[in-house]
Amino acid sequence: MTNRWTDGPGPRLRDVSEDELLAQIFPLLPRGGPVVVAPGDDTALVRTAYGSVLATTDTMVRGRDWLDEWSSPADVGGKSVAQNVADIASMGGRATALLVTLVADPETPVAWVLDFAAGLGAAAAEIEVPIAGGDLSSAPAGTLMVSITALGDVDGDPVLRSGARGGDVVAVAGTLGRSAAGFVLLQQDRADDDEDLVREHVRPRPPYEQGPVARSAGATAMIDLSDGLVRDAGRVAAASGVRLELSTELLRADLDRLTGVLDDDAALGCVLTGGEEHSLLACFPPEVALPDGWRRIGQVGAGEGVTVDGRPRSGGGWDHFHP
Amino acid sequence: MTNRWTDGPGPRLRDVSEDELLAQIFPLLPRGGPVVVAPGDDTALVRTAYGSVLATTDTMVRGRDWLDEWSSPADVGGKSVAQNVADIASMGGRATALLVTLVADPETPVAWVLDFAAGLGAAAAEIEVPIAGGDLSSAPAGTLMVSITALGDVDGDPVLRSGARGGDVVAVAGTLGRSAAGFVLLQQDRADDDEDLVREHVRPRPPYEQGPVARSAGATAMIDLSDGLVRDAGRVAAASGVRLELSTELLRADLDRLTGVLDDDAALGCVLTGGEEHSLLACFPPEVALPDGWRRIGQVGAGEGVTVDGRPRSGGGWDHFHP
Repeated sequence: MTNRWTDGPGPRLRDVSEDELLAQIFPLLPRGGPVVVAPGDDTALVRTAYGSVLATTDTMVRGRDWLDEWSSPADVGGKSVAQNVADIASMGGRATALLVTLVADPETPVAWVLDFAAGLGAAAAEIEVPIAGGDLSSAPAGTLMVSITALGDVDGDPVLRSGARGGDVVAVAGTLGRSAAGFVLLQQDRADDDEDLVREHVRPRPPYEQGPVARSAGATAMIDLSDGLVRDAGRVAAASGVRLELSTELLRADLDRLTGVLDDDAALGCVLTGGEEHSLLACFPPEVALPDGWRRIGQVGAGEGVTVDGRPRSGGGWDHFHP
Repeated sequence: MTNRWTDGPGPRLRDVSEDELLAQIFPLLPRGGPVVVAPGDDTALVRTAYGSVLATTDTMVRGRDWLDEWSSPADVGGKSVAQNVADIASMGGRATALLVTLVADPETPVAWVLDFAAGLGAAAAEIEVPIAGGDLSSAPAGTLMVSITALGDVDGDPVLRSGARGGDVVAVAGTLGRSAAGFVLLQQDRADDDEDLVREHVRPRPPYEQGPVARSAGATAMIDLSDGLVRDAGRVAAASGVRLELSTELLRADLDRLTGVLDDDAALGCVLTGGEEHSLLACFPPEVALPDGWRRIGQVGAGEGVTVDGRPRSGGGWDHFHP
């Protein structure tokens, strides 16, 4: 028996880009009301008579976002916290609570779930963020996924992607390229060559604390680096209507960290386009002294897009339905 | 190559009950802080210096929570809104925003996703709840799931499950047994016999508005009926340390609605134990006049558990890993 919705002709998700799909979905969904910022930034801000709250959600799917050979269940739990809390931090906020959904094949070992919960709990406890609730569901054979919603507070207005101005300094808090370098080592079966890099891939610990610090210091725009430096810098450039001009000279320490593990081209690729680092990129007015924990990697100029050493550069891409 | 986490010996999720699993997970997760109510009620309340927010999350998985033969994509979208918003209502709150996660096999037709978004958007727009954000991820072949987080406001303290007192009136807002009756018709390939009942199964429209109404009227305890009248009444009884005494005489109209479609035993089963209705059950002090939209179905007495016409009754059960 055919089903008009599942068996009909017409394009499949694999046939359209994520951006094309979202462009068709967004007009179908109600907007506005108490939702002050959304979608299109890292995190929504919902402001009502009873207060304001930041809210963001992110999902990890086995086989897409992690491989069991490389990540322990505790790693998956820790990384799921990191991804979501970094999105709160990138608005200048602090996470206040997490909701955790686990959808699992009934054949999943109980030990997997308990190690996952221990890793998630430890990552949340370290930053004093309680688990407020969640959901547990069964899934078809082989499927295992984790979806987290993080809630947070921001002291006043959040820092958006759209506030960068010509003359601002572009700065980063946290590492660059290490998660991607760890991923390369895992792919090449060379995990023993640099266990620290592998750890930064399977269990990142982003500099969440620097989000509110940057906000207090006067950051004009901020984003967390989930899809790579150049791609995420391009998002700030597009939202702000400016050009972000990066300099490899200012990335020297990041590149040097990967020397001896990867060749120079691969190291540059990891630093410029490696994803899942979850460090923070922000723009600061030129008169602001960068807070401790932040380092300059470029400047904001007129124009659009991202340049590296004066040449336009695009960040490559990641699309969930065309990996 | 075997993997210690996925291939090791030891119990699987199918070998333990959901309650046993949660009892092992909860101690691993940090609690407290700004989370005032959680877990163990329908919805968490997170209260900080910046305000307070209700937050709840619920997931629907194809093959578990819906079948493509019975539910259109728009039905799935509408029901996912209903489930979550009913949880906010059951605290006496109003939903303020939704976050929507869709995890889909890349072979999913684009038309499925757009019809889903239209149904979700229409259900949210009808109650003026904007979509604040979400996430889109790819899934293994055949997997399709939707996870929603609902945020909400409550005017003062929320209504918990734990406040019922001896002498209170037990009352319901909304229908009883119709979703389950519709499910029976679908299973028996008799959907044409009563399309309204089928619609109440695939696309419920719970009486959300009655949550704040009950709170204002002085409800002492409230829950949304997601797992059946007796089972959910039992949760209020357990949380409050009382007995909920139900009367089939007071359920006469609900039973009569199913006459001619189901035999008397099946009708009684649907009304007492049918799930996914998402009507609201609340307890009110005896001196309170029940608000419009609420009707008495029993009373609160001393003891524990639930009685129907004076006899103890358990609600059956639903466990995600042992359906």
